[in-house]
Amino acid sequence: MIGCGTEITLSWDHIQQAQRRLQGVARRTPVFHSRQFDQEAGCTVLFKAENLQRAGAFKFRGAYNKIKGESEKQKVDSVVAFSSGNHAQAVALTAKLMGTRATIIMPEDAPPAKIAATRAYGAEVVFYDRYAENRQDIGERLCRERSAILVPPFDDPFIIAGQGTAALELLDEVPDLDFLLAPVSGCGLIAGCALAARHLRPQIRILGVEPEAGNDTYLSLVKGERVAIPVPRTIADGLQVTSPGELTFPIVKQFVERILLVSDAELVETLIFILERLKILVEPSGVAAAAAVRHKKADFSGKRVGIILSGGNVDMKALGGYLSHDQ
Amino acid sequence: MIGCGTEITLSWDHIQQAQRRLQGVARRTPVFHSRQFDQEAGCTVLFKAENLQRAGAFKFRGAYNKIKGESEKQKVDSVVAFSSGNHAQAVALTAKLMGTRATIIMPEDAPPAKIAATRAYGAEVVFYDRYAENRQDIGERLCRERSAILVPPFDDPFIIAGQGTAALELLDEVPDLDFLLAPVSGCGLIAGCALAARHLRPQIRILGVEPEAGNDTYLSLVKGERVAIPVPRTIADGLQVTSPGELTFPIVKQFVERILLVSDAELVETLIFILERLKILVEPSGVAAAAAVRHKKADFSGKRVGIILSGGNVDMKALGGYLSHDQ
Repeated sequence: MIGCGTEITLSWDHIQQAQRRLQGVARRTPVFHSRQFDQEAGCTVLFKAENLQRAGAFKFRGAYNKIKGESEKQKVDSVVAFSSGNHAQAVALTAKLMGTRATIIMPEDAPPAKIAATRAYGAEVVFYDRYAENRQDIGERLCRERSAILVPPFDDPFIIAGQGTAALELLDEVPDLDFLLAPVSGCGLIAGCALAARHLRPQIRILGVEPEAGNDTYLSLVKGERVAIPVPRTIADGLQVTSPGELTFPIVKQFVERILLVSDAELVETLIFILERLKILVEPSGVAAAAAVRHKKADFSGKRVGIILSGGNVDMKALGGYLSHDQ
Repeated sequence: MIGCGTEITLSWDHIQQAQRRLQGVARRTPVFHSRQFDQEAGCTVLFKAENLQRAGAFKFRGAYNKIKGESEKQKVDSVVAFSSGNHAQAVALTAKLMGTRATIIMPEDAPPAKIAATRAYGAEVVFYDRYAENRQDIGERLCRERSAILVPPFDDPFIIAGQGTAALELLDEVPDLDFLLAPVSGCGLIAGCALAARHLRPQIRILGVEPEAGNDTYLSLVKGERVAIPVPRTIADGLQVTSPGELTFPIVKQFVERILLVSDAELVETLIFILERLKILVEPSGVAAAAAVRHKKADFSGKRVGIILSGGNVDMKALGGYLSHDQ
């Protein structure tokens, strides 16, 4: 059990509760293996394909666990979230499944495809000017006005526990892993997965992966405290959070050995390899952990490495660009 | 039980035997479902993802069943196949797994990526001039010289029974289908799947799908006998066989209601939809059945439709081209 802030603690029990809530609702995503990836990386890699999760990313696990968990304590008629990415779609889908009203706060310049996908799940999209307004303030105001609960993207015990079920399932299927790697943004995924994996296999080594430009958690671990950086420029649009979370960082500090860094070019190369050989589409953020192993950012020789492929929401025009640049 | 030529018969038993041989060797591929695909098509579609099969296509089922089955009757030291596509890789992989020598006969102008993939499995590639030489003659000569057995791409009871295991697995997971659709080339896949599906669910309706240009089986069913056409021009490079098989056609005649035709543009549109929404890569030939449902080539309203996504081996440069043309 580990302290989260002043009064909240997170334990294996919370991950098991999340797993029960998600049973029959979230997909139990398949685990992939590629002999050629192994051969080139010099280790055995098992890929947990969360790009095949509902709404296209692991985010559904946390969002559903949060809203379902809150609804066990109180009546939840309305939820609010701010996100222009996978979290928005996860919250919108959860709200639709639970018959709850959802309001998603997005910047005015969010990609039209993301806005459309969020609306397609029935959510209301409220825009804000990212240069003049604070989305946190708007979120709190909307929560008051609509008697809604806020669904944060990572810094919440329900969210962390929900994301941890990805590692629970992976280790249930492949118990004998030496390493577990996951992409790192606000650290919700890596924190939840570290808690689950260490409970199930105490000797497992946990590493996080960030894009070179978005190295806030790398810097934070080096310094021993949370460091904030300017919004990074990287194609990994899901990994552009500027600082690890307040609740997630202590868990990362305790369980995550270190953060590996990958370049945008390594992300694209790995995305294309996985598309061509494994026949699955993973977004640039989602291949970060795979890119770190493929490009040998640490010594994994002869080891068994579990990797979370965290999402698959790629704009087709962007994908066309990656493919034409790579030729 | 149905007669195949003069002395060979194919029955449910052969498909069960194939299933036993493939147990633990072939992947039991997942079944996908997309609410948005359903909504737009007006029916419920279950996709059997054979693009995620070993060597990237259903072809592995037939090739393995053939070589393993022959090896139960006689010692098999060497196998020969002619193919520049998915069958080549399936035979090469099977031979590698069984410690057998493989020779693949390919046209001199086969795509370098396919040649490399086949060699990567350890097979020897023998080239022929497709304008001056007959690959069947070369195959027979090599079989004599090397005491090898020939592994035909479709017209063989072991091959047909092997391919049928895809439908066996699909109906095992989703028993209550109204329709089963599969792409049609030499008819090995549709014949095997029809045998399996009709045994498990006698009322199921079976439809095949061909590209508009490669309508040899469509014409053959209309005429009631095998018709040959010139090599068709279509992006569905796996569906360029010019005539249904001698053994497969009687099965098609008995069980397949009719053949639907799809355009190359419909194949590309469907490939991109499946890539973007289901996050899996299927080749143009492989989406033929999905394209027929998506583009409403028959009335499936309100029905439950099983579809074989037959392969996922797409050249990345070609994929980049599809994506840029579609934008």
